[in-house]
Amino acid sequence: MKLFNNNEPIKDTKIFALGGLGEVGKNMYCFMHENELIITDAGITFPGNELMGIDYVIPDFTFLKKNEKKIKALFITHGHEDHIGGIPFLLQTVNIPVIYAPNQAIGLIRKKLDERNIKYKNLIAYDETTKVKFKNIEVEFIRTTHSIPDSHGIVITTPNGRIVTTGDFKFDLTPIGPMANIHKMAAVGNRGVTLLLSDSTNALNEGMSMSESRVDNALSDIFSRYHGRIIIATFASNIYRLKHIVDTCKRNGRKIATFGRSMDTNIEISIQGGYIKNKDIFITPEEANKLPDSKVCLLCTGSQGEPLAALSRIANGTHRQIKLKDDDVVIFSSSPIPGNALSISRTINKLYMRGVEVYTNTSLSDIHTSGHGSEEELKWMLRLIKPKYFMPFHGEYRMLKKHADIATLCDIPRENTFVLGNGDVLSMYKGKIKRAGMVQAGDIYVDGKRIGDVGNAVMKDRKVMANDGIVIVIANIDSNHKKLLLNPNITTRGFVLVNDNLELLKELEMISKNAINSKLKGHLNYSDIKNEVTNQLANYIYEKTGRKPIILPVIMDIKK
Amino acid sequence: MKLFNNNEPIKDTKIFALGGLGEVGKNMYCFMHENELIITDAGITFPGNELMGIDYVIPDFTFLKKNEKKIKALFITHGHEDHIGGIPFLLQTVNIPVIYAPNQAIGLIRKKLDERNIKYKNLIAYDETTKVKFKNIEVEFIRTTHSIPDSHGIVITTPNGRIVTTGDFKFDLTPIGPMANIHKMAAVGNRGVTLLLSDSTNALNEGMSMSESRVDNALSDIFSRYHGRIIIATFASNIYRLKHIVDTCKRNGRKIATFGRSMDTNIEISIQGGYIKNKDIFITPEEANKLPDSKVCLLCTGSQGEPLAALSRIANGTHRQIKLKDDDVVIFSSSPIPGNALSISRTINKLYMRGVEVYTNTSLSDIHTSGHGSEEELKWMLRLIKPKYFMPFHGEYRMLKKHADIATLCDIPRENTFVLGNGDVLSMYKGKIKRAGMVQAGDIYVDGKRIGDVGNAVMKDRKVMANDGIVIVIANIDSNHKKLLLNPNITTRGFVLVNDNLELLKELEMISKNAINSKLKGHLNYSDIKNEVTNQLANYIYEKTGRKPIILPVIMDIKK
Repeated sequence: MKLFNNNEPIKDTKIFALGGLGEVGKNMYCFMHENELIITDAGITFPGNELMGIDYVIPDFTFLKKNEKKIKALFITHGHEDHIGGIPFLLQTVNIPVIYAPNQAIGLIRKKLDERNIKYKNLIAYDETTKVKFKNIEVEFIRTTHSIPDSHGIVITTPNGRIVTTGDFKFDLTPIGPMANIHKMAAVGNRGVTLLLSDSTNALNEGMSMSESRVDNALSDIFSRYHGRIIIATFASNIYRLKHIVDTCKRNGRKIATFGRSMDTNIEISIQGGYIKNKDIFITPEEANKLPDSKVCLLCTGSQGEPLAALSRIANGTHRQIKLKDDDVVIFSSSPIPGNALSISRTINKLYMRGVEVYTNTSLSDIHTSGHGSEEELKWMLRLIKPKYFMPFHGEYRMLKKHADIATLCDIPRENTFVLGNGDVLSMYKGKIKRAGMVQAGDIYVDGKRIGDVGNAVMKDRKVMANDGIVIVIANIDSNHKKLLLNPNITTRGFVLVNDNLELLKELEMISKNAINSKLKGHLNYSDIKNEVTNQLANYIYEKTGRKPIILPVIMDIKK
Repeated sequence: MKLFNNNEPIKDTKIFALGGLGEVGKNMYCFMHENELIITDAGITFPGNELMGIDYVIPDFTFLKKNEKKIKALFITHGHEDHIGGIPFLLQTVNIPVIYAPNQAIGLIRKKLDERNIKYKNLIAYDETTKVKFKNIEVEFIRTTHSIPDSHGIVITTPNGRIVTTGDFKFDLTPIGPMANIHKMAAVGNRGVTLLLSDSTNALNEGMSMSESRVDNALSDIFSRYHGRIIIATFASNIYRLKHIVDTCKRNGRKIATFGRSMDTNIEISIQGGYIKNKDIFITPEEANKLPDSKVCLLCTGSQGEPLAALSRIANGTHRQIKLKDDDVVIFSSSPIPGNALSISRTINKLYMRGVEVYTNTSLSDIHTSGHGSEEELKWMLRLIKPKYFMPFHGEYRMLKKHADIATLCDIPRENTFVLGNGDVLSMYKGKIKRAGMVQAGDIYVDGKRIGDVGNAVMKDRKVMANDGIVIVIANIDSNHKKLLLNPNITTRGFVLVNDNLELLKELEMISKNAINSKLKGHLNYSDIKNEVTNQLANYIYEKTGRKPIILPVIMDIKK
């Protein structure tokens, strides 16, 4: 590898993640050489149940904001939310000169920006033939197979060495779309790779993942056996699966009504991109209700048992347009994401109670396959790229750890593997890599459209409130005369039933009143007053009820 | 691919098998362009039970004999018997100017030739860097993984296109020896390949084969749990397995006594080649009997329950040196070859009856893995080489057929796949391939060291004799005086018990005498005499006994 001239003094190249390490989600990786910084992916995480009211989690962009002038480009590997979902928030915070993305992702990103009225002109489509050159850094692309078309690995050549970052991938040797470019991987491997960053999502799965082609057979089989309506719940982001379903419906003379906004978006973009061709097959729910059952397929979100998704409402009998019939068949063409097992089984139970047939990937394994490679596929990537150093990415810690173990089986020395967290920095200098400090990284919560104003304290509050509710004490004082104008108003939410506890609330009112009065002397200090109220109420409430609600005193000064 | 100049008139290149199609064994493939013929492999088949008394089956070399002057070289892919076993017989029949073979195979071939006192000087070692150029044909090599070191695929470039023949292979990504050169495979694939011939042995197995590395873990586990003698039966040809066993014994402080000639040969060659390093670990059976049980490992042939192999004799209690003890453990580090299930289970039953612990790949799957790739590995080869045409080889018909199906899943058009038999010829012309007649091919039986004098008729006889025995009629006649000198001598084998059937035999003598006398007139025709004897005896015997032994009249003319 002739990447650098030993006579020129060069600085090191820095590599770190702002998201994607220790988690499956919000992928964002940075590669910085002197005054050039390139970013790959800008994803979000959909928060688990413990983050109440939070819509998304995005990476902390502080480092990027501080180094804004160095940023040359953002490169997107593929169009899944955990790789593109952060783009609107990133663009609102940091100036990104240009975003390179593959075709299908371009469609999804445009849609996303349009919805938020973000004008951005420098969105450029790349394909495998594209090369992007900066002063010190050169970027190329390798086609991979994943559950969405146009997924790519990225090759980053710097003066200190070459880096390959896989994006999400599996090795599907009988794919629905084009093959992964294993020949280019081998060629890049032969040119010499210093560092490989590789997808760890399924590192814990032995063997290899099933080909997407086999799902086709399983679906066809079910379609040929039933004549009632077929209801399929799947991930809207799994474009190849949607294509399967469309093709299978086409062959079996069924029309498709879709349910769920992400489903509509992904189908729209896939039709635009030419990945799904039978536009005419889609009908409205009203039209579906007028066709014979044997001519209908309902395609909906909710494969994770999400309570508000179409499938859950259908199962509950609360869907406005769709009521279950005895000969309906429901297919979960998906796998349960850990943590959703309970909500999924609740949905399945309800479906069974309504007497319909249900297929899941437990009852029929060929009904779903992952878009991420299992252990043997990860070995293939390691063997093809044959890097000197290895950094597992895109995974929880146990997945990263296992992936590092796998790398050592493939002849990467243990000391050349780096299991890192977000913000941990690697320094690459003349083909050698070592740990080198940290940059700021963390979770930023997005509540609705507001970024970052939902900090950890808010999340903590929400957790407390979820358990014990809130007690709000509103006190109007006259600071000139240092007196309470009225008895404090006690308002509660999620604490106790008001009508059953009038006495308790009256007590709280009196305690608050006394607490405030005790502090209405000398120089008024609002914090002091609030603390006094909070402490006295907290003690009393805990003593009486065993609960620890949030206590929120609001002091309003009404000068007379 | 710029292999030919359209202005020059060129002839087609012919490709065919003299062995290896429709069978697992006696691999031999020919590639002929004008007056240049190269051969890959020259194997034998170990015959099944239906071929009584036959030691080996080799290909019919008639075509090679007729085209002897065209033969430029024989290339050996690896040192297993079904790829090199035919060499002594080939060299006795046909002039082969040079044999190229990899290191481990060279050792085994030399041994084989020495044993038969065949002097042959032109045995040349090749490795991955070797290129062999003839006038029209160029040959290169690609390292593969298999159960013996130094296995290679062969790349044959002709004026009409490029051919890759895999030899035997699996894709073991955590191999004991060096990795398969997947990068060279990809590079050759990128240069353009017209025809791929690929190993079909395990085409019927779904998924992928287990890595040889896992056998190591399974062996270590057993070694750590037992303190009696450990007796391991395995294929002597599986060099990596032998290496495992040696390494495991080394770690556990056990010495090894070996049993079986092929075991001794393979270990000797492997030590010479440096594949097995601990020469000192090997001891004689006598020495083994003097050591404590916990220090002893007995390594023997007979994993297929072969009645004369060491393991069977040990199980029977008829082994001269080794008697079983209660705390012995027997490991079958092997898989049953179809057809051997009965003899293996007989051996296992005997071992259990003697109270020893037995492990087989049924009771512990990690104790053995195949050296041949399963379906997904075959797909990898197809994807890496991405040939225009495909010819599955090394397999029974059902395996070849399945392998062709697999190829169609990997985007080879069905009409570009060729499921052929030995002797079927493919014609490659300017990058296109079609069927083109046949050459002579077939099975030649080798009985002891004699080639080819055991034809189909002999095999038929042996089958008949196996069922009904033989009746030999020896008649001494004087052709001058046209008379029988003595009553014919009737000798039988495997027909009836002589002492219980003296009367029958006397009848046969009389019938023979009359038959001969009836033909001792006019011009003597020995065939006539023999036919008369045979017909009369056959009819009589069938009538009396319901049997159809071979009847063999021998007429000896003793002129007086």
